[in-house]
This record gives sequence, structure tokens and C-alpha cells, in this order.
Amino acid sequence: MSDNKITPIRPTDDTARALARDLMAGARIAALGVTDPDHGGPHVSRIALHCSAAAGCLTLISDLAYHARGLRADPRVSLLIDETGGKGDPLTHPRLTLRAQAEKVTDGAERAALRALWLRHVPKAKLYIDFTDFHFIRFHPLSGLLNAGFGKAYELDKKDLTLAPGRGDRFSD
Amino acid sequence: MSDNKITPIRPTDDTARALARDLMAGARIAALGVTDPDHGGPHVSRIALHCSAAAGCLTLISDLAYHARGLRADPRVSLLIDETGGKGDPLTHPRLTLRAQAEKVTDGAERAALRALWLRHVPKAKLYIDFTDFHFIRFHPLSGLLNAGFGKAYELDKKDLTLAPGRGDRFSD
Repeated sequence: MSDNKITPIRPTDDTARALARDLMAGARIAALGVTDPDHGGPHVSRIALHCSAAAGCLTLISDLAYHARGLRADPRVSLLIDETGGKGDPLTHPRLTLRAQAEKVTDGAERAALRALWLRHVPKAKLYIDFTDFHFIRFHPLSGLLNAGFGKAYELDKKDLTLAPGRGDRFSD
Repeated sequence: MSDNKITPIRPTDDTARALARDLMAGARIAALGVTDPDHGGPHVSRIALHCSAAAGCLTLISDLAYHARGLRADPRVSLLIDETGGKGDPLTHPRLTLRAQAEKVTDGAERAALRALWLRHVPKAKLYIDFTDFHFIRFHPLSGLLNAGFGKAYELDKKDLTLAPGRGDRFSD
């Protein structure tokens, strides 16, 4: 059987788009895939994640972490977002894989604004957020693959993954 | 700062080894990292996972799934195992990243034995386990990175990741 003859991908509709954006706006954590800096191939780790219209998709990581070294060598990442805090069987929960490009936040004023947002998102981060090895990384989504249930997969493009103003901004004043 | 001068990696001890094996033996799901077959770079998705001394680390996936196409092109994978079903803050839970080699189970007798085990692991799989596009994939661990808490990282080798007889075999008769 050819790889391309049969596909479980359904035509993308507004319901799929809304579900993908809901997953992004509600995300607190993600599984981050980077290219393994020592061995090649993938390397997956757990990160905190915040996605909002105002701030984009963000994490805070230490330069000393293995995945940070992977990001420096290759900014192509994958983010798995699912309702890991949800009840019941995680295999039946909708989940979204984002293909994204990682970019380190280097601007001081931007970092200060994100610092305040992040401390509302992850209060425990106050213990390490000011360590010099910790930096914000912004993920720019390029495309997505939504699994909305058995046999229900949808492809999302960059525009589908753009949050409307106000979405995800649960920490705005 | 050089990448290699400062490391948060601690010397591997028996407590770390035991924790890594506990995570493997208790795993019901994992985040699977493969190489994205269309774009290169990583691709992360949710899978069911079973690890036991008797059966090894296993999943059941459809040939039609995007990650299956990735596996066919490159068998190098990463598996993130954490206590996603646990209570409290997932960022404080111990988690293990396995670097592994994927291999499709092609032997008919072995498949039959694994089928019975898998239906005890994931009862809902009875709905699709006999579809012709579904196959078992065995993951052979090569190395691991354990995150046992903030600043507590440990490297595990292949031997560290070998389950003792009986471990994980909660479905044995």
C-alpha cells in the first residue's frame, strides 16, 4: 500500500480550527520535541507553555537544559498540547501537534513584560526566573496536526493557528 | 559560557535507576518523538505505551498515522514518560526521556501473544486492533535522561533501563 493513497486526514473546518485554538489558549504544559544535540533524531521533554494572542507561544528554559542545547543547534521544534490535566483516558482526549520555529527573546523590555506574565502563569517560577541562565523562548507556529478522536485528524495552517485578540490572555489586567 | 562547562547532571545512583524503571513499568502513555517525514525536524504525538520485562516497550499504531510514516523513514525515536495521570503540578513530577530504536513486530505468533497483553493494557483497542493497518512497534531503549525535580537530572544507560524479571508484568497470568 502506498503511503499516500489512504489518509485519515479530514477536510479542515471551523470546528477543528476552534478546537485547535482552544487547546493552544488553554495550554499550561507541552511535550517539546527538539533535535537531539548529541545523537541526532528527536528528543522530547516536558515544558511549561503559555499561548496567547498578546504574547504568542512561550516557554522559560535554562540554557543548561539539554533541550536548550538542542534548540541552539536547530530551532525546528514540535509541541504536543493535550489535556493532560483532564480526567479520564488521555488517549481519547483531543490533542494538537504544532510544528514551530523557536526564537530566543533577547530584548530586555520585552523580557520584563513577559516576566510579569509568566509569574502569573507559573507562580513557582519565582524561585529561578531571575537566574542568568533562564530565558524566554517564543515558538512561531508553522503548521499543526489535530487529533480530535479516533480517525479524526485535521491539518492546520499558520493562519488557522493564529489566536484572535484576547484569546489566552487570562492574565491580562 | 561553553555548552559543556556547567551541567545540571548528577552522578547516577540506584535511587535514580529505580525511579526511571518505576516510570517505565508504570507507563500507560508516552509522548512519542519521531523525525517529521515531510519537513524534517521533530514531530511529537501521543501514544499508548506498555513497558514490561517480558514484552519490552510497546505501542500499537496504524500504518496510516503520520508518526508511523516517520518511523518507517527513520527508526530513531524519543519517548517522554511522565505521570500525566498524577495529581498536582505536572512540572514537578519526575519524568523520563528515553532515546530508543523502533522496530515493527512482524512475527505472527509474537503478534498473537502481544495482542492478548495489549487488550488487557488498553481494553478499548478491541475496536481496531484487528484492522490490517495496525501493528505493534517495539522500542529498544538506548539511553535515558531522568528529570527527578528542579536541577536533578540523571543520565541512564541501556543497562540502567533494563527491567528486572516480573517488572511491569501486571497483566501476566
